[in-house]
Amino acid sequence: MSGSTFGERFKMTTFGESHGEAVGVIIEGVTPDIELNEEYIQIQMDRRKPGQSSVTTSRKEYDRIRILSGVFEGRTTGTPLSIILNNTDMRPSAYDDIKFMFRPGHADFSYVKKYGFRDYRGSGRASGRETAARVAAGAVARKLLERRGVSVVSYTTEIGGIRCTTFDPDAIERNPVRACDLAAADKMIERIEKLAAEGDSCGGIVECRISGIAAGLGEPVFDKLDAELAKAMLSIGAIKGIEFGAGFRAASMLGSEHNDQMDEMGFRTNHAGGILGGISTGADIVFRVVVKPTSSISIPQQTIDMDGNERNITTVGRHDPCICPRIVPVIEAMACMVIEDHYKRQAALLY
Amino acid sequence: MSGSTFGERFKMTTFGESHGEAVGVIIEGVTPDIELNEEYIQIQMDRRKPGQSSVTTSRKEYDRIRILSGVFEGRTTGTPLSIILNNTDMRPSAYDDIKFMFRPGHADFSYVKKYGFRDYRGSGRASGRETAARVAAGAVARKLLERRGVSVVSYTTEIGGIRCTTFDPDAIERNPVRACDLAAADKMIERIEKLAAEGDSCGGIVECRISGIAAGLGEPVFDKLDAELAKAMLSIGAIKGIEFGAGFRAASMLGSEHNDQMDEMGFRTNHAGGILGGISTGADIVFRVVVKPTSSISIPQQTIDMDGNERNITTVGRHDPCICPRIVPVIEAMACMVIEDHYKRQAALLY
Amino acid sequence: MSGSTFGERFKMTTFGESHGEAVGVIIEGVTPDIELNEEYIQIQMDRRKPGQSSVTTSRKEYDRIRILSGVFEGRTTGTPLSIILNNTDMRPSAYDDIKFMFRPGHADFSYVKKYGFRDYRGSGRASGRETAARVAAGAVARKLLERRGVSVVSYTTEIGGIRCTTFDPDAIERNPVRACDLAAADKMIERIEKLAAEGDSCGGIVECRISGIAAGLGEPVFDKLDAELAKAMLSIGAIKGIEFGAGFRAASMLGSEHNDQMDEMGFRTNHAGGILGGISTGADIVFRVVVKPTSSISIPQQTIDMDGNERNITTVGRHDPCICPRIVPVIEAMACMVIEDHYKRQAALLY
Amino acid sequence: MSGSTFGERFKMTTFGESHGEAVGVIIEGVTPDIELNEEYIQIQMDRRKPGQSSVTTSRKEYDRIRILSGVFEGRTTGTPLSIILNNTDMRPSAYDDIKFMFRPGHADFSYVKKYGFRDYRGSGRASGRETAARVAAGAVARKLLERRGVSVVSYTTEIGGIRCTTFDPDAIERNPVRACDLAAADKMIERIEKLAAEGDSCGGIVECRISGIAAGLGEPVFDKLDAELAKAMLSIGAIKGIEFGAGFRAASMLGSEHNDQMDEMGFRTNHAGGILGGISTGADIVFRVVVKPTSSISIPQQTIDMDGNERNITTVGRHDPCICPRIVPVIEAMACMVIEDHYKRQAALLY
Repeated sequence: MSGSTFGERFKMTTFGESHGEAVGVIIEGVTPDIELNEEYIQIQMDRRKPGQSSVTTSRKEYDRIRILSGVFEGRTTGTPLSIILNNTDMRPSAYDDIKFMFRPGHADFSYVKKYGFRDYRGSGRASGRETAARVAAGAVARKLLERRGVSVVSYTTEIGGIRCTTFDPDAIERNPVRACDLAAADKMIERIEKLAAEGDSCGGIVECRISGIAAGLGEPVFDKLDAELAKAMLSIGAIKGIEFGAGFRAASMLGSEHNDQMDEMGFRTNHAGGILGGISTGADIVFRVVVKPTSSISIPQQTIDMDGNERNITTVGRHDPCICPRIVPVIEAMACMVIEDHYKRQAALLY
Repeated sequence: MSGSTFGERFKMTTFGESHGEAVGVIIEGVTPDIELNEEYIQIQMDRRKPGQSSVTTSRKEYDRIRILSGVFEGRTTGTPLSIILNNTDMRPSAYDDIKFMFRPGHADFSYVKKYGFRDYRGSGRASGRETAARVAAGAVARKLLERRGVSVVSYTTEIGGIRCTTFDPDAIERNPVRACDLAAADKMIERIEKLAAEGDSCGGIVECRISGIAAGLGEPVFDKLDAELAKAMLSIGAIKGIEFGAGFRAASMLGSEHNDQMDEMGFRTNHAGGILGGISTGADIVFRVVVKPTSSISIPQQTIDMDGNERNITTVGRHDPCICPRIVPVIEAMACMVIEDHYKRQAALLY
Repeated sequence: MSGSTFGERFKMTTFGESHGEAVGVIIEGVTPDIELNEEYIQIQMDRRKPGQSSVTTSRKEYDRIRILSGVFEGRTTGTPLSIILNNTDMRPSAYDDIKFMFRPGHADFSYVKKYGFRDYRGSGRASGRETAARVAAGAVARKLLERRGVSVVSYTTEIGGIRCTTFDPDAIERNPVRACDLAAADKMIERIEKLAAEGDSCGGIVECRISGIAAGLGEPVFDKLDAELAKAMLSIGAIKGIEFGAGFRAASMLGSEHNDQMDEMGFRTNHAGGILGGISTGADIVFRVVVKPTSSISIPQQTIDMDGNERNITTVGRHDPCICPRIVPVIEAMACMVIEDHYKRQAALLY
Repeated sequence: MSGSTFGERFKMTTFGESHGEAVGVIIEGVTPDIELNEEYIQIQMDRRKPGQSSVTTSRKEYDRIRILSGVFEGRTTGTPLSIILNNTDMRPSAYDDIKFMFRPGHADFSYVKKYGFRDYRGSGRASGRETAARVAAGAVARKLLERRGVSVVSYTTEIGGIRCTTFDPDAIERNPVRACDLAAADKMIERIEKLAAEGDSCGGIVECRISGIAAGLGEPVFDKLDAELAKAMLSIGAIKGIEFGAGFRAASMLGSEHNDQMDEMGFRTNHAGGILGGISTGADIVFRVVVKPTSSISIPQQTIDMDGNERNITTVGRHDPCICPRIVPVIEAMACMVIEDHYKRQAALLY
């Protein structure tokens, strides 16, 4: 595969580029006869779309999805479900000045090395625009997981060095940075706006919590549930690391501390993050990812052009100074697909 | 797949259990007519084998590999290469006391939930023993990578809270914890021996560096090179997190700091860890993984048995108080396979 | 996979239903920087489209394809190439009378058993309409094969009991049944028109010849080149059998007759059909497929409805009395994809 | 993959070569907690083994299988089940005279073109010996299918031009050619013995019937059940064609004849061979394959050597003059695996 397909029994294939005509996704393995409509999917699209607040890009993509196949009279048919989004507000001209320069932090250089070819209209397949298709597919997975009583929630825990100190689930969708702490959210917004004014950007950390999941999901050895979730998350452009449960803190813990002991009520702690030996234990699956600072900044930087000459570059255009708020629904979408896929794999194993 | 297969064009399928008759691996996609013998593979096996020093388990597995197919007159045939290792020194009886109890930190509970079945002889497919087959396959990948001028080196950077403060490549194989700093190594050994005496264990951090790699490897979107490496590493039982380049530090960095600017000499920094947009840049690929403390400790812990009754458990038997030294060759093996696989995928794309 | 993806290194995923809004295909693994435009693909679409002659359905699908991604400035980018065709001239109402009856020879019954669900608008994913997407993808594969000097040609050799007695390559595209013998073609047309007038249909045989192919393509054991071609052909709805080289005649041949002996000029005969041990020999690959009579006929037939009651059914609507002429480009498309995929797999193996 | 893996949810990977130390198979996706022992598998091995009668090779392979993993206390564990068979009675020296010549009808030439390499000990991966591993895996699939009430039976219907005229299921295992007609069997044996005396060989036709199968198995579009069965059968070295139901006769049938009409009792006929639109209908699945004459004959033939010089070749050694009797259990094994795999895929879809 050229990498555009994800999943085994619940499977998506995405297509489209940031400045092409449309992006879309084909979803295979959808359970038939499930109620599904465009509005349900649109709710998730709207959480990812740009221009939601002062801290996101002002670029307008009217992310209105259309279902082209796989749904009949409001119910899934079990055959491939295809969803398309037309791209709008394309301004390739905005890239004229930098079309032959490699933008620092972007995939321009590595793509040219891979394909021997420069599609200078934005970032092609490496564009965050591609994640819109993932969110659409994730919404379908979420619909299937609802029947299983599984919930998947992500939220910002750190931005630009400011950390959440409380966890308030109700706060998450009530602040533009999707932080789990309203007080911290205010400081984060202030920080982002200051950096945006300076033409700079910042990174952060997003946590994801999967609740209500059955024990026994995941495959031994290579397709462990945490291995699959790690691949899913690192496949999101801006994410540079992931940790489960106690994560990197485990490096300085003792076995007698890290082991989750059990009693009649179940696990007393959850340092393992809900996964042992790659298989879910039924406890909440908890992981954190690090989101790098947005690469597109308007501060002048040093780079080279396609002829290898040193050049100064300033990325104009409209970009998110911090991608955390909009990456939250993408993380949830990928997590939903991994979990739904493994429910189906387990059904096949036991049948 | 039930998760025992890894890779696309360079592909391995492992089999066997910790206390069964043998473990082994089938490797597909090996370039034909390459010189290869058992001794070359055995070198890597000996780096993973137990009983290497005072800080590893005293359990004796005489990890002598045998090539059953795929090599003829000292050269690869291009057909599946199969390697087998007989298990020796099996002591299932050592598990009699705990055969119906769930060992904290182990996969016993999640496996029973998955399979509705308890194979109480050690950890079955979840056993570290399975990684011996990976190391054998990784040695074959390493042989192919040598022709491409790629080197893959891993080393311990932290154990039990003690960190390396220097990087001395020559030190790595000259100390039993495979640390990149001999002074730190002495403290680590001391720490491990103290914990072992107390019946406890500790975790650590291992770094991996891939040098001489071509730019342009990796697939856009889902099969990004960092996503594939993340899956490969999280598929190793004791590993609970991974970060590339600046990793989690990126959460508190600015775009103007994190972006790797370029000049005529190439990248001035490597915060990206050698990967942009999921594609290699040609710079060294650098990542770190966190290794959890060994779950098997002889300090009494609280758990439940298969009937749900609370029980006290003490894991006797011979275990590594810290798995870092022996996980180093496993990390290298997995990294070698991912890189070799992507060299082959790129060849297919461009052909 | 829910079966909508085909291929490994040259890979397509199709979507869409006969009476939905559109059908389309995503193609992965396309070699970058190859000249490609919509007109080139349209040529193949026009060979498959209905309404070409008196012997094909009068249904009008304006099969105008559009490339949504993967081509930039007239050259392939190497990223997923997506192609869409809008459906037009949809008349679901034409199906009102039979919406709850199972049409003999159609997939209505088996689909209901599979999905527990009836999409009565035509045949959904089982519709011949889906093959339009295959032909578009096949045209891309054909473009890549041209660079390798490979040609793929199919033609009708038998329809309704009338057989071609000569092989005239120039005749194929000069008669509406795409027969390789103009005299036989006239009789075939006569036969088809007579059956059409009676409301009946007929089957036939189509042969495919792949020339200029390299020796050494195909994988041993399960992914033999003939095994992959067989799967590709049987995945076309109306095809019920395939034979290579001497095919079923081999049942009554001796080893001394069937073996293709060699001399300095190469193989003296080609009973093997260009494949030995599943690997191409460099000789022409030759296979024949049997095409069943079109299931949709206007002669009354006995069937049951969804409640199990016996009913009489008469399929109105516009259908091909013999599908051979329009299946020829579909067979070529599938063959092109299999061969291109194996060129890429071989490149990966040897690299 | 280098083609040694087959299946999705019930999946096997085989290894080993005709004259190597051993052959074997790893089976993934086996339902856990099913009773299974070596004796059950051995029954099928013994049906395939050579030296069963005067019409099979006198070569002795003591096909005693051993289960290395995946079974514990007589029940499947759900983890990979690995089975190994040691090769015995290897006589590579028998190949000395022809080690640099291409045997007509064999894969020698195409393998050298693929791998640039000659493993002259028998046929390597192309050897019929590899099918022993398939039969072992097929026995495991058969065990799972028994729980579902599915039976898979194959039998010879034609050898050397002699056809069965009756169908007697009880006859099949009571005659050495596994024909479904004892009278025809006697003539077939006579024919084979005569040809063997002349140093020649002959082909035949084998039919397979799958009964008790659920309706709704198979995937639309590319992974149709007939497409998967066709690939499975063509992956067996000596098989050169396959047809379902009416098969090639459909070329001269009318739609009104070929369509299987339905009444309250179900399908009145089975020209479709139990599959419509690639999905099982619940009727018996019936297909026939053509088996080519054994390539190894002792009549002198013309060939070339690796330097391209014309040579005469006479294949000494012990070979089956007709492979039909021993290919029957291989066909059943492959069919069992395809059907079991699709039961599991369907379970995943509907879950």
